[in-house]
Amino acid sequence: MLVYGRNVAKEVLQRPEKVKKVKIQKNFDDKEINSLLEKNKIKTEVLDKKEFAKFDKFSHQGIILDIEDFSYANYKEFLDVENAKVVILDHIEDPHNLGAIIRTSEAAGITGIIIPKDRSVDVNSTVMKTSAGAVENIKIAKVTNLINVINDLKENGFWIVGTAMAGSVDYRDIDYTGKIALIIGNEGKGVSKAVMEECDYLAKIPMYGKINSLNASVAAGIMIYEVISLDK
Amino acid sequence: MLVYGRNVAKEVLQRPEKVKKVKIQKNFDDKEINSLLEKNKIKTEVLDKKEFAKFDKFSHQGIILDIEDFSYANYKEFLDVENAKVVILDHIEDPHNLGAIIRTSEAAGITGIIIPKDRSVDVNSTVMKTSAGAVENIKIAKVTNLINVINDLKENGFWIVGTAMAGSVDYRDIDYTGKIALIIGNEGKGVSKAVMEECDYLAKIPMYGKINSLNASVAAGIMIYEVISLDK
Repeated sequence: MLVYGRNVAKEVLQRPEKVKKVKIQKNFDDKEINSLLEKNKIKTEVLDKKEFAKFDKFSHQGIILDIEDFSYANYKEFLDVENAKVVILDHIEDPHNLGAIIRTSEAAGITGIIIPKDRSVDVNSTVMKTSAGAVENIKIAKVTNLINVINDLKENGFWIVGTAMAGSVDYRDIDYTGKIALIIGNEGKGVSKAVMEECDYLAKIPMYGKINSLNASVAAGIMIYEVISLDK
Repeated sequence: MLVYGRNVAKEVLQRPEKVKKVKIQKNFDDKEINSLLEKNKIKTEVLDKKEFAKFDKFSHQGIILDIEDFSYANYKEFLDVENAKVVILDHIEDPHNLGAIIRTSEAAGITGIIIPKDRSVDVNSTVMKTSAGAVENIKIAKVTNLINVINDLKENGFWIVGTAMAGSVDYRDIDYTGKIALIIGNEGKGVSKAVMEECDYLAKIPMYGKINSLNASVAAGIMIYEVISLDK
Protein backbone atom coordinates (compact mmCIF):
# COMPACT_ATOMS: atom_id res chain seq x y z
CA MET A 1 0.00 0.00 0.00
CA LEU A 2 1.35 3.43 -0.94
CA VAL A 3 0.97 6.28 1.54
CA TYR A 4 1.90 9.89 0.94
CA GLY A 5 3.08 13.00 2.75
CA ARG A 6 5.18 14.09 5.67
CA ASN A 7 2.74 13.64 8.57
CA VAL A 8 1.89 10.11 7.52
CA ALA A 9 5.60 9.40 7.00
CA LYS A 10 6.42 10.47 10.55
CA GLU A 11 3.72 8.18 11.93
CA VAL A 12 4.55 5.20 9.76
CA LEU A 13 8.26 5.49 10.54
CA GLN A 14 7.45 4.81 14.19
CA ARG A 15 6.92 1.22 12.99
CA PRO A 16 9.82 0.92 10.55
CA GLU A 17 9.37 -2.86 10.19
CA LYS A 18 6.18 -2.16 8.21
CA VAL A 19 7.96 0.01 5.64
CA LYS A 20 8.92 -1.80 2.45
CA LYS A 21 10.26 1.01 0.27
CA VAL A 22 10.51 4.80 0.30
CA LYS A 23 10.68 7.22 -2.60
CA ILE A 24 11.80 10.77 -1.92
CA GLN A 25 12.12 13.75 -4.18
CA LYS A 26 15.58 15.12 -4.87
CA ASN A 27 16.53 17.74 -2.24
CA PHE A 28 13.87 16.47 0.19
CA ASP A 29 14.76 18.43 3.32
CA ASP A 30 12.60 17.34 6.25
CA LYS A 31 15.18 16.82 8.99
CA GLU A 32 12.98 14.73 11.29
CA ILE A 33 12.03 12.30 8.52
CA ASN A 34 15.55 12.10 7.14
CA SER A 35 16.90 11.23 10.56
CA LEU A 36 14.17 8.56 11.06
CA LEU A 37 15.07 7.04 7.70
CA GLU A 38 18.74 7.04 8.61
CA LYS A 39 18.26 5.71 12.14
CA ASN A 40 16.19 2.80 10.87
CA LYS A 41 18.51 2.14 7.93
CA ILE A 42 15.64 2.41 5.44
CA LYS A 43 16.73 2.45 1.82
CA THR A 44 15.34 5.32 -0.20
CA GLU A 45 15.03 5.84 -3.89
CA VAL A 46 15.65 9.45 -4.92
CA LEU A 47 13.65 10.72 -7.89
CA ASP A 48 13.78 14.11 -9.55
CA LYS A 49 10.83 16.48 -9.69
CA LYS A 50 9.83 15.35 -13.17
CA GLU A 51 9.67 11.67 -12.18
CA PHE A 52 7.65 12.59 -9.08
CA ALA A 53 5.10 14.57 -11.10
CA LYS A 54 2.92 11.54 -11.77
CA PHE A 55 2.17 11.31 -8.03
CA ASP A 56 1.27 15.00 -7.72
CA LYS A 57 -2.44 14.36 -7.25
CA PHE A 58 -1.70 12.65 -3.91
CA SER A 59 -0.16 15.72 -2.22
CA HIS A 60 2.97 13.71 -1.43
CA GLN A 61 5.10 16.64 -0.18
CA GLY A 62 8.15 14.90 -1.65
CA ILE A 63 7.80 11.52 0.05
CA ILE A 64 5.98 8.29 -0.81
CA LEU A 65 6.16 5.16 1.34
CA ASP A 66 5.29 1.64 0.30
CA ILE A 67 4.11 -0.07 3.48
CA GLU A 68 2.60 -3.43 4.34
CA ASP A 69 -1.16 -3.62 3.84
CA PHE A 70 -3.25 -3.21 6.96
CA SER A 71 -3.65 -6.56 8.71
CA TYR A 72 -7.21 -7.27 9.69
CA ALA A 73 -8.26 -9.13 12.83
CA ASN A 74 -10.71 -12.06 13.12
CA TYR A 75 -14.00 -11.01 14.74
CA LYS A 76 -14.04 -14.32 16.66
CA GLU A 77 -11.48 -12.70 18.95
CA PHE A 78 -14.19 -10.32 20.19
CA LEU A 79 -16.69 -13.02 21.16
CA ASP A 80 -15.36 -13.98 24.58
CA VAL A 81 -14.27 -10.55 25.80
CA GLU A 82 -16.10 -9.65 29.01
CA ASN A 83 -18.50 -6.74 28.53
CA ALA A 84 -17.21 -6.43 24.95
CA LYS A 85 -18.28 -3.32 23.09
CA VAL A 86 -18.06 -3.84 19.33
CA VAL A 87 -18.76 -1.29 16.57
CA ILE A 88 -20.18 -2.64 13.29
CA LEU A 89 -20.06 -0.34 10.26
CA ASP A 90 -22.82 -1.17 7.80
CA HIS A 91 -21.18 0.01 4.55
CA ILE A 92 -19.53 3.30 5.43
CA GLU A 93 -18.25 4.78 2.14
CA ASP A 94 -16.31 7.91 3.06
CA PRO A 95 -12.70 7.27 4.16
CA HIS A 96 -12.77 10.40 6.37
CA ASN A 97 -15.77 9.02 8.23
CA LEU A 98 -14.14 5.61 8.63
CA GLY A 99 -10.92 7.24 9.90
CA ALA A 100 -12.76 9.42 12.40
CA ILE A 101 -14.86 6.48 13.66
CA ILE A 102 -11.71 4.37 14.14
CA ARG A 103 -10.13 7.27 16.06
CA THR A 104 -13.19 7.66 18.33
CA SER A 105 -13.47 3.89 18.87
CA GLU A 106 -9.84 3.60 19.89
CA ALA A 107 -10.09 6.58 22.24
CA ALA A 108 -13.25 5.15 23.81
CA GLY A 109 -11.66 1.76 24.43
CA ILE A 110 -13.94 -0.14 22.03
CA THR A 111 -13.09 -3.90 21.82
CA GLY A 112 -13.05 -4.04 18.02
CA ILE A 113 -14.59 -2.84 14.77
CA ILE A 114 -16.29 -4.97 12.12
CA ILE A 115 -16.61 -3.83 8.49
CA PRO A 116 -18.06 -5.72 5.52
CA LYS A 117 -15.90 -6.81 2.56
CA ASP A 118 -18.16 -5.40 -0.16
CA ARG A 119 -19.42 -1.88 -0.87
CA SER A 120 -17.41 -0.44 2.02
CA VAL A 121 -14.29 1.68 2.17
CA ASP A 122 -11.12 -0.25 3.12
CA VAL A 123 -8.45 0.81 5.59
CA ASN A 124 -6.47 2.81 3.02
CA SER A 125 -4.02 5.69 3.32
CA THR A 126 -6.73 8.37 3.74
CA VAL A 127 -8.30 6.33 6.53
CA MET A 128 -4.92 5.93 8.22
CA LYS A 129 -4.32 9.67 8.00
CA THR A 130 -7.78 10.66 9.32
CA SER A 131 -7.58 8.14 12.16
CA ALA A 132 -4.51 9.97 13.52
CA GLY A 133 -2.70 6.64 13.80
CA ALA A 134 -5.49 4.88 15.72
CA VAL A 135 -5.71 2.06 13.14
CA GLU A 136 -2.52 0.63 14.62
CA ASN A 137 -4.05 0.36 18.09
CA ILE A 138 -7.46 -1.20 17.52
CA LYS A 139 -8.60 -4.51 16.04
CA ILE A 140 -10.56 -4.22 12.80
CA ALA A 141 -12.18 -7.30 11.25
CA LYS A 142 -13.40 -7.49 7.67
CA VAL A 143 -16.22 -10.00 7.12
CA THR A 144 -18.05 -11.46 4.11
CA ASN A 145 -21.54 -11.60 5.56
CA LEU A 146 -22.66 -9.11 8.20
CA ILE A 147 -25.89 -10.99 8.98
CA ASN A 148 -24.06 -14.25 9.77
CA VAL A 149 -21.62 -12.39 12.00
CA ILE A 150 -24.44 -10.57 13.83
CA ASN A 151 -26.11 -13.92 14.49
CA ASP A 152 -22.85 -15.33 15.80
CA LEU A 153 -22.53 -12.32 18.12
CA LYS A 154 -26.08 -12.88 19.36
CA GLU A 155 -25.38 -16.54 20.09
CA ASN A 156 -22.44 -15.37 22.16
CA GLY A 157 -24.50 -13.09 24.35
CA PHE A 158 -24.28 -9.77 22.50
CA TRP A 159 -27.18 -7.31 22.35
CA ILE A 160 -27.45 -5.71 18.92
CA VAL A 161 -28.16 -1.96 18.84
CA GLY A 162 -28.77 -0.30 15.47
CA THR A 163 -28.71 3.46 14.99
CA ALA A 164 -31.59 4.75 12.88
CA MET A 165 -33.22 8.13 12.37
CA ALA A 166 -36.53 6.28 12.42
CA GLY A 167 -35.44 4.34 15.50
CA SER A 168 -37.98 3.64 18.17
CA VAL A 169 -35.97 4.20 21.37
CA ASP A 170 -34.14 7.33 22.53
CA TYR A 171 -30.45 6.32 22.54
CA ARG A 172 -30.18 7.43 26.20
CA ASP A 173 -32.89 5.03 27.34
CA ILE A 174 -31.10 1.80 26.39
CA ASP A 175 -29.23 -0.37 28.91
CA TYR A 176 -25.74 -0.85 27.49
CA THR A 177 -24.34 -3.11 30.21
CA GLY A 178 -22.84 -6.43 29.14
CA LYS A 179 -21.81 -7.30 25.59
CA ILE A 180 -23.03 -4.79 23.03
CA ALA A 181 -22.64 -4.55 19.25
CA LEU A 182 -23.42 -1.03 18.01
CA ILE A 183 -24.29 -0.70 14.32
CA ILE A 184 -23.63 2.52 12.41
CA GLY A 185 -25.26 2.80 8.97
CA ASN A 186 -24.19 4.07 5.58
CA GLU A 187 -23.90 7.85 5.11
CA GLY A 188 -26.86 8.13 2.75
CA LYS A 189 -28.96 5.03 3.31
CA GLY A 190 -28.45 4.36 7.03
CA VAL A 191 -28.57 0.82 8.42
CA SER A 192 -29.75 -1.64 5.75
CA LYS A 193 -33.13 -3.30 6.13
CA ALA A 194 -31.76 -6.84 6.55
CA VAL A 195 -29.40 -5.70 9.30
CA MET A 196 -32.13 -3.65 10.98
CA GLU A 197 -34.28 -6.75 11.31
CA GLU A 198 -31.56 -8.40 13.40
CA CYS A 199 -31.36 -5.54 15.92
CA ASP A 200 -32.60 -5.90 19.50
CA TYR A 201 -32.95 -2.12 19.73
CA LEU A 202 -33.14 0.65 17.16
CA ALA A 203 -31.66 3.69 18.85
CA LYS A 204 -32.63 7.20 17.78
CA ILE A 205 -30.58 10.33 18.38
CA PRO A 206 -33.28 13.00 18.77
CA MET A 207 -33.28 15.88 16.28
CA TYR A 208 -34.71 19.26 17.23
CA GLY A 209 -33.96 21.33 14.11
CA LYS A 210 -34.79 21.20 10.43
CA ILE A 211 -31.82 18.98 9.59
CA ASN A 212 -32.84 15.35 10.05
CA SER A 213 -29.49 13.60 10.19
CA LEU A 214 -25.97 14.01 11.57
CA ASN A 215 -22.63 13.39 9.90
CA ALA A 216 -21.96 9.63 10.25
CA SER A 217 -18.79 10.07 12.30
CA VAL A 218 -20.50 12.55 14.65
CA ALA A 219 -23.48 10.22 15.18
CA ALA A 220 -21.05 7.35 15.78
CA GLY A 221 -19.16 9.45 18.36
CA ILE A 222 -22.31 10.32 20.30
CA MET A 223 -23.47 6.68 20.31
CA ILE A 224 -20.05 5.18 21.14
CA TYR A 225 -19.58 7.42 24.18
CA GLU A 226 -23.09 6.60 25.38
CA VAL A 227 -22.50 2.86 24.95
CA ILE A 228 -19.27 2.85 26.96
CA SER A 229 -20.36 5.31 29.64
CA LEU A 230 -21.78 2.77 32.11
CA ASP A 231 -18.80 0.44 32.24
CA LYS A 232 -16.21 3.16 32.75
CA MET B 1 -19.57 34.54 -2.63
CA LEU B 2 -19.03 31.94 -5.36
CA VAL B 3 -20.27 28.39 -4.74
CA TYR B 4 -19.77 25.42 -7.02
CA GLY B 5 -21.36 22.15 -8.06
CA ARG B 6 -24.75 20.55 -8.58
CA ASN B 7 -25.65 19.55 -5.01
CA VAL B 8 -24.90 23.02 -3.69
CA ALA B 9 -26.80 24.53 -6.62
CA LYS B 10 -29.91 22.52 -5.80
CA GLU B 11 -29.78 23.66 -2.19
CA VAL B 12 -29.07 27.30 -2.96
CA LEU B 13 -31.83 27.46 -5.55
CA GLN B 14 -34.35 26.72 -2.80
CA ARG B 15 -33.68 30.34 -1.79
CA PRO B 16 -33.52 31.96 -5.22
CA GLU B 17 -33.62 35.48 -3.77
CA LYS B 18 -30.05 34.94 -2.54
CA VAL B 19 -28.72 34.11 -6.00
CA LYS B 20 -27.07 37.03 -7.77
CA LYS B 21 -25.67 35.40 -10.90
CA VAL B 22 -25.20 31.93 -12.38
CA LYS B 23 -22.61 30.70 -14.84
CA ILE B 24 -23.25 27.40 -16.59
CA GLN B 25 -21.14 25.46 -19.02
CA LYS B 26 -22.42 25.03 -22.58
CA ASN B 27 -24.62 21.91 -22.85
CA PHE B 28 -25.19 21.78 -19.06
CA ASP B 29 -27.83 19.08 -18.82
CA ASP B 30 -29.04 18.74 -15.21
CA LYS B 31 -32.81 18.77 -15.64
CA GLU B 32 -33.67 19.54 -12.01
CA ILE B 33 -31.33 22.54 -11.89
CA ASN B 34 -32.36 23.82 -15.31
CA SER B 35 -36.00 23.72 -14.29
CA LEU B 36 -35.22 25.53 -10.98
CA LEU B 37 -33.36 28.22 -12.92
CA GLU B 38 -36.25 28.59 -15.31
CA LYS B 39 -38.98 28.54 -12.65
CA ASN B 40 -37.23 31.28 -10.69
CA LYS B 41 -36.39 33.29 -13.80
CA ILE B 42 -32.70 33.38 -12.94
CA LYS B 43 -30.50 34.74 -15.68
CA THR B 44 -27.60 32.50 -16.60
CA GLU B 45 -24.42 33.20 -18.45
CA VAL B 46 -23.36 30.32 -20.71
CA LEU B 47 -19.62 29.80 -21.10
CA ASP B 48 -17.80 27.23 -23.22
CA LYS B 49 -15.55 24.54 -21.78
CA LYS B 50 -12.42 26.57 -22.39
CA GLU B 51 -13.73 29.60 -20.49
CA PHE B 52 -14.81 27.34 -17.64
CA ALA B 53 -11.39 25.71 -17.36
CA LYS B 54 -10.06 28.35 -14.95
CA PHE B 55 -12.60 27.18 -12.35
CA ASP B 56 -11.70 23.48 -12.73
CA LYS B 57 -9.99 23.25 -9.37
CA PHE B 58 -13.34 23.84 -7.63
CA SER B 59 -15.10 20.70 -9.04
CA HIS B 60 -17.89 22.88 -10.39
CA GLN B 61 -19.63 20.16 -12.44
CA GLY B 62 -20.58 22.81 -14.98
CA ILE B 63 -22.27 25.31 -12.66
CA ILE B 64 -21.07 28.25 -10.59
CA LEU B 65 -23.39 30.46 -8.55
CA ASP B 66 -22.64 33.90 -7.20
CA ILE B 67 -24.75 34.20 -4.06
CA GLU B 68 -25.11 36.75 -1.31
CA ASP B 69 -22.51 36.41 1.43
CA PHE B 70 -23.66 34.62 4.56
CA SER B 71 -25.37 37.05 6.87
CA TYR B 72 -24.14 36.79 10.43
CA ALA B 73 -26.30 37.31 13.50
CA ASN B 74 -25.56 39.53 16.52
CA TYR B 75 -24.70 37.47 19.62
CA LYS B 76 -26.74 39.90 21.75
CA GLU B 77 -29.80 38.07 20.40
CA PHE B 78 -28.77 34.99 22.40
CA LEU B 79 -28.50 36.75 25.77
CA ASP B 80 -32.13 36.76 26.82
CA VAL B 81 -33.17 33.36 25.48
CA GLU B 82 -34.45 31.17 28.30
CA ASN B 83 -32.15 28.19 28.98
CA ALA B 84 -30.07 29.30 25.99
CA LYS B 85 -27.42 26.82 24.85
CA VAL B 86 -24.70 28.59 22.86
CA VAL B 87 -21.68 27.01 21.14
CA ILE B 88 -18.49 29.10 20.96
CA LEU B 89 -15.79 27.97 18.53
CA ASP B 90 -12.36 29.08 19.70
CA HIS B 91 -10.58 29.33 16.33
CA ILE B 92 -11.71 26.26 14.38
CA GLU B 93 -9.64 26.19 11.17
CA ASP B 94 -10.98 23.30 9.11
CA PRO B 95 -14.10 24.15 7.07
CA HIS B 96 -15.27 20.50 7.23
CA ASN B 97 -15.19 20.67 11.03
CA LEU B 98 -17.05 23.98 11.06
CA GLY B 99 -19.67 22.60 8.66
CA ALA B 100 -20.17 19.42 10.72
CA ILE B 101 -20.42 21.40 13.98
CA ILE B 102 -23.01 23.73 12.46
CA ARG B 103 -24.98 20.68 11.28
CA THR B 104 -24.88 19.05 14.73
CA SER B 105 -25.78 22.33 16.48
CA GLU B 106 -28.78 22.88 14.25
CA ALA B 107 -29.97 19.29 14.71
CA ALA B 108 -29.57 19.59 18.49
CA GLY B 109 -31.58 22.80 18.68
CA ILE B 110 -28.65 24.97 19.82
CA THR B 111 -29.63 28.66 20.27
CA GLY B 112 -26.69 30.05 18.31
CA ILE B 113 -23.01 29.73 17.41
CA ILE B 114 -20.28 32.31 18.05
CA ILE B 115 -17.05 32.38 16.04
CA PRO B 116 -14.17 34.88 16.24
CA LYS B 117 -13.29 37.22 13.37
CA ASP B 118 -9.58 36.40 13.25
CA ARG B 119 -7.68 33.16 12.71
CA SER B 120 -10.89 31.21 12.17
CA VAL B 121 -12.52 29.74 9.10
CA ASP B 122 -15.47 31.74 7.75
CA VAL B 123 -18.82 30.43 6.58
CA ASN B 124 -17.64 29.75 3.03
CA SER B 125 -18.86 27.40 0.30
CA THR B 126 -17.13 24.29 1.77
CA VAL B 127 -18.72 25.00 5.14
CA MET B 128 -22.12 25.40 3.50
CA LYS B 129 -21.70 22.08 1.69
CA THR B 130 -20.51 20.15 4.77
CA SER B 131 -23.28 21.58 6.95
CA ALA B 132 -25.85 19.96 4.64
CA GLY B 133 -27.72 23.25 4.46
CA ALA B 134 -27.87 23.80 8.24
CA VAL B 135 -26.19 27.25 7.95
CA GLU B 136 -29.49 28.63 6.70
CA ASN B 137 -31.36 27.47 9.83
CA ILE B 138 -29.14 28.52 12.71
CA LYS B 139 -27.87 31.88 13.93
CA ILE B 140 -24.10 32.36 13.68
CA ALA B 141 -22.44 35.45 15.15
CA LYS B 142 -18.91 36.61 14.28
CA VAL B 143 -17.23 38.62 17.04
CA THR B 144 -14.03 40.64 17.38
CA ASN B 145 -13.12 39.73 20.92
CA LEU B 146 -14.12 36.37 22.37
CA ILE B 147 -13.11 37.31 25.93
CA ASN B 148 -15.36 40.38 25.99
CA VAL B 149 -18.25 38.35 24.63
CA ILE B 150 -17.71 35.58 27.20
CA ASN B 151 -17.79 38.19 29.96
CA ASP B 152 -21.00 39.62 28.54
CA LEU B 153 -22.50 36.12 28.51
CA LYS B 154 -21.47 35.64 32.15
CA GLU B 155 -23.08 38.91 33.17
CA ASN B 156 -26.26 37.65 31.57
CA GLY B 157 -26.38 34.46 33.59
CA PHE B 158 -24.48 32.03 31.37
CA TRP B 159 -22.23 29.28 32.76
CA ILE B 160 -19.12 28.86 30.64
CA VAL B 161 -18.00 25.30 29.93
CA GLY B 162 -14.70 24.76 28.12
CA THR B 163 -13.71 21.43 26.58
CA ALA B 164 -10.13 20.46 27.33
CA MET B 165 -8.20 17.19 27.23
CA ALA B 166 -6.57 18.31 30.44
CA GLY B 167 -9.96 19.30 31.85
CA SER B 168 -10.69 18.65 35.48
CA VAL B 169 -14.29 17.41 35.38
CA ASP B 170 -15.76 14.44 33.53
CA TYR B 171 -18.16 15.98 30.98
CA ARG B 172 -21.00 13.80 32.31
CA ASP B 173 -20.69 15.22 35.82
CA ILE B 174 -21.54 18.82 34.97
CA ASP B 175 -25.00 20.34 35.51
CA TYR B 176 -26.03 21.85 32.20
CA THR B 177 -29.38 23.28 33.27
CA GLY B 178 -29.99 26.97 32.62
CA LYS B 179 -27.97 29.13 30.24
CA ILE B 180 -24.82 27.42 29.01
CA ALA B 181 -22.03 28.50 26.65
CA LEU B 182 -20.00 25.50 25.46
CA ILE B 183 -16.54 26.25 24.11
CA ILE B 184 -14.88 23.99 21.53
CA GLY B 185 -11.17 24.58 20.93
CA ASN B 186 -8.92 24.70 17.88
CA GLU B 187 -8.08 21.37 16.18
CA GLY B 188 -4.43 21.40 17.19
CA LYS B 189 -4.14 23.75 20.14
CA GLY B 190 -7.47 23.25 21.90
CA VAL B 191 -9.09 26.06 23.88
CA SER B 192 -6.71 29.02 24.22
CA LYS B 193 -5.29 29.85 27.62
CA ALA B 194 -6.99 33.24 27.92
CA VAL B 195 -10.38 31.70 27.14
CA MET B 196 -9.74 28.76 29.49
CA GLU B 197 -9.25 31.19 32.37
CA GLU B 198 -12.78 32.50 31.85
CA CYS B 199 -14.38 29.06 32.10
CA ASP B 200 -16.54 28.01 35.06
CA TYR B 201 -15.88 24.35 34.23
CA LEU B 202 -13.27 22.58 32.11
CA ALA B 203 -14.96 19.43 30.85
CA LYS B 204 -12.97 16.37 29.90
CA ILE B 205 -14.12 13.61 27.57
CA PRO B 206 -12.37 10.54 29.03
CA MET B 207 -9.92 8.69 26.79
CA TYR B 208 -9.26 4.99 27.29
CA GLY B 209 -6.89 4.21 24.40
CA LYS B 210 -3.53 5.42 23.14
CA ILE B 211 -5.01 8.24 21.10
CA ASN B 212 -5.38 11.30 23.32
CA SER B 213 -7.80 13.44 21.35
CA LEU B 214 -10.89 13.20 19.18
CA ASN B 215 -11.66 14.88 15.89
CA ALA B 216 -12.98 18.39 16.76
CA SER B 217 -16.40 17.85 15.20
CA VAL B 218 -16.82 14.48 16.96
CA ALA B 219 -15.85 15.96 20.35
CA ALA B 220 -18.26 18.84 19.68
CA GLY B 221 -21.05 16.37 18.86
CA ILE B 222 -20.56 14.39 22.08
CA MET B 223 -20.50 17.57 24.19
CA ILE B 224 -23.41 19.27 22.42
CA TYR B 225 -25.72 16.27 22.91
CA GLU B 226 -24.71 16.05 26.56
CA VAL B 227 -25.36 19.77 27.09
CA ILE B 228 -28.87 19.67 25.62
CA SER B 229 -29.91 16.32 27.08
CA LEU B 230 -31.44 17.62 30.30
CA ASP B 231 -33.69 20.24 28.80
CA LYS B 232 -35.16 17.97 26.14
